[in-house]
Amino acid sequence: MTHFEQEIAALKEMLLTMASKAETAVNKAIKALVDRNDDLALAVKEEDNALDTLEIEVDESAIALLSKAPLASDLRLITVAMRISHDLERVGDEATTIARRSLELGQEPQLKPYIDIPRMAKMALEMLSDALEAFVHRNPEKARAVIPRDKEVDALNKQLHRELSSYMIEKPTTITRCLNLMVISKSLERIADHATNVAEEVVYLYEAKDIRHTGKGKES
Amino acid sequence: MTHFEQEIAALKEMLLTMASKAETAVNKAIKALVDRNDDLALAVKEEDNALDTLEIEVDESAIALLSKAPLASDLRLITVAMRISHDLERVGDEATTIARRSLELGQEPQLKPYIDIPRMAKMALEMLSDALEAFVHRNPEKARAVIPRDKEVDALNKQLHRELSSYMIEKPTTITRCLNLMVISKSLERIADHATNVAEEVVYLYEAKDIRHTGKGKES
Repeated sequence: MTHFEQEIAALKEMLLTMASKAETAVNKAIKALVDRNDDLALAVKEEDNALDTLEIEVDESAIALLSKAPLASDLRLITVAMRISHDLERVGDEATTIARRSLELGQEPQLKPYIDIPRMAKMALEMLSDALEAFVHRNPEKARAVIPRDKEVDALNKQLHRELSSYMIEKPTTITRCLNLMVISKSLERIADHATNVAEEVVYLYEAKDIRHTGKGKES
Repeated sequence: MTHFEQEIAALKEMLLTMASKAETAVNKAIKALVDRNDDLALAVKEEDNALDTLEIEVDESAIALLSKAPLASDLRLITVAMRISHDLERVGDEATTIARRSLELGQEPQLKPYIDIPRMAKMALEMLSDALEAFVHRNPEKARAVIPRDKEVDALNKQLHRELSSYMIEKPTTITRCLNLMVISKSLERIADHATNVAEEVVYLYEAKDIRHTGKGKES
């Protein structure tokens, strides 16, 4: 490996570290919600801070590498790495939102057992790890297969939104709790959006074809 | 001007076009809401499509320019341009969300005259245009002054959220409308976040100092 290749490998390694921290943050936030564990919710902030710092480090390495990149494909790889790092940092932000809302939910009795929310979290995190694996193993087909899964998470979010709306109408005393759950569901839907972004970037990187904005159908 | 400088100037010009389209999209969406004008709401999609296309064009130009950039400061300018373009594209997405919710609100009687929402929109758009001006005129102080204004928009969003929550509890028949207004208010808060991102990028660009994640205090 040349020195340049080593630096590119180090950049990829940083992204994998970020991905792992983002995943941990989301899992902790969801566990905090389900177990009503405030300490765990508060611990999410640490992962988020680490992600913020790593994003800045990725950017600095990337800018330094850009000036040495010999090929157009290297330039593309480096700019894609910067974008992926941004998406992972945003996943950390969403985890923090979930943790904050879990803390609020912890102050009132639980509305009902949470089934759909952990399911959405699992789906969104699987999308994210598949997209990252596709990046590492240069596998655009795998990345492409991630993209349609976003629709399933969107559908679950919409369904939950409808259920919570009806619930609020029936029992106005649950409004605050329902609103907090809606925000959490929306955060998970956004995590799936970030996973989709990463997948689209990976397709672009390895097929040199920009498929963003081709009818992914962002919903909100 | 060298050929490279001309290409950089063209890149900046593309960002200004994007900024103008993003502003138009938000203004149309808010006017559609206030005037209950469905045609206007539907027209927001056009600006959003143009923004999607422009974002891809900016990326292509930027990647082409990166390989010719002689200085580290050029590399930074080009990568910052890519990020700003991403933020502007997202502003278009938020405008589309506002337009979609306005269409839903148009199907029920109006809850009350909208005062805070147009005010938030004005504040967010002024932040965005100031940040862009700071970019064009190489004025990091102006960019820095944008950042604290995000807190005011956050505060308005929270206040509106509280008001709408109480309203829902008093009159459960208004729940659907209140939820739509909450989403619109949140979209405006996100537009102010994007403006803040742009401002932070401009400070970073001209002061070579990364001030992201230094306690902006994202809220949700």
